[in-house]
Amino acid sequence: MQKLTIVKIGGNIIDDEPQLSAFLQEFANIEGAKILVHGGGKLATNMSTKLGIETQMVDGRRITDAETLKVVSMVYAGWVNKNITAKLNALGAASVGVCGVDGGSIPAQKRPVVTVDYGFVGDVDAATINIPFFQLLLDGGYIPVVAPITADAAQLLNTNADTIASCLAIALSLYYSTGLVYCFEKNGVLKNVEDSDSVIEKLDEKTYHSLRKSGGIVKGMIPKLDNSFIALDNGVQEVIIGNSAHLSQLLTHQSGTRIVLT
Amino acid sequence: MQKLTIVKIGGNIIDDEPQLSAFLQEFANIEGAKILVHGGGKLATNMSTKLGIETQMVDGRRITDAETLKVVSMVYAGWVNKNITAKLNALGAASVGVCGVDGGSIPAQKRPVVTVDYGFVGDVDAATINIPFFQLLLDGGYIPVVAPITADAAQLLNTNADTIASCLAIALSLYYSTGLVYCFEKNGVLKNVEDSDSVIEKLDEKTYHSLRKSGGIVKGMIPKLDNSFIALDNGVQEVIIGNSAHLSQLLTHQSGTRIVLT
Repeated sequence: MQKLTIVKIGGNIIDDEPQLSAFLQEFANIEGAKILVHGGGKLATNMSTKLGIETQMVDGRRITDAETLKVVSMVYAGWVNKNITAKLNALGAASVGVCGVDGGSIPAQKRPVVTVDYGFVGDVDAATINIPFFQLLLDGGYIPVVAPITADAAQLLNTNADTIASCLAIALSLYYSTGLVYCFEKNGVLKNVEDSDSVIEKLDEKTYHSLRKSGGIVKGMIPKLDNSFIALDNGVQEVIIGNSAHLSQLLTHQSGTRIVLT
Repeated sequence: MQKLTIVKIGGNIIDDEPQLSAFLQEFANIEGAKILVHGGGKLATNMSTKLGIETQMVDGRRITDAETLKVVSMVYAGWVNKNITAKLNALGAASVGVCGVDGGSIPAQKRPVVTVDYGFVGDVDAATINIPFFQLLLDGGYIPVVAPITADAAQLLNTNADTIASCLAIALSLYYSTGLVYCFEKNGVLKNVEDSDSVIEKLDEKTYHSLRKSGGIVKGMIPKLDNSFIALDNGVQEVIIGNSAHLSQLLTHQSGTRIVLT
């Protein structure tokens, strides 16, 4: 099977022009088929503040009301997506910026209200990804650059970028030997959150669950790690979590945390 | 040659939900290959106002400063483009929202400063359109929905949607029998701008130039008509200008103005 590398970036790097450019140069150098999934950085929050939209949080999670949906759609699928795509094209890495709406590529369902109404938030499922759409772009020689906006039949929906990356990886692992790389601002999954050098080189599912029980995994890491194990359980070849500043070392296992089943 | 219909919409319809939905239903019904090019409506102006960005105009033309570029990129390539694309997909018309950045589809040059510095405005050229990119989408069964944002090697650029539509039509007329339809809020090119029923059914280049000389063509129509004649001069089969509320009648010559060379 052909190799496919799916990289997800989020956090501060998106707002930091020199860091982002350095990252994109390394990303452009990755051999073979690749997909970039991005979040939105602080720009969405800044834009909401400027527009006087209050960020509503419940249980540490952002509620997407109608005005917030407009802002995240504009920032993620408009400004950030097209800037990253233009930069990659300028580096000679032919790229197409899309979101889950385009080509019906990532169908979503508005999250049902159980105890909390998260608002215009989309839940996605690897089984419904429009694989031929991504193959069309990849086989055409283009890198899909994916913004985390989706839609159901009625409206756009805000969607978790980590989940989109893992769903894409799972779906495409049917046709490609797929590696998934979660990049963020830390050097990997840390034994001790205070010590940025305490990177766990290899994390298996059993260790993860015992660390999680003992409180050794910080809360923000849990969805990323859950997504990682789901990906590995469903055909994804390799999952790595690490610093966006070390992309090439992550790919050669010289940096970051390798997530493994056993 | 296969038939291709390129429709450009702009103006108030983009902000008017029921009108837009009715238009998109008619657009979805067009047989054969099709492309939709859209402007941004009033949302960009509203957003700029809310963000405290002053619209600078020189000679009736908007200057795109850095802040305005951000707003138009977000509104056109983000919110408007993804909403239209989601609506078409919901109608069963598989669509992909792109802008000129994606796939390097519509290369642009930042407009050189002659007497006026228009800021981050892109000039485009039919000869540099990435035709295979549009063929990839069209042959894949997708409708490209095109937002008027482009880029040069350095940055995103704001670009005239009428010009993008005519450049696309010219480039693709090498491979398709191409019709170009400019939709706006009037019923066509009017003999008398005060009388909405005074539609000129057929306008040739000679009549256009004499009407233009005598002041019979309103200023806002001039770029649209110039683009129309350039398109016809360069291989586009048919150009029609009319009301977005009458799309199907425009296509069957029961409404609007047909632009003809002689």
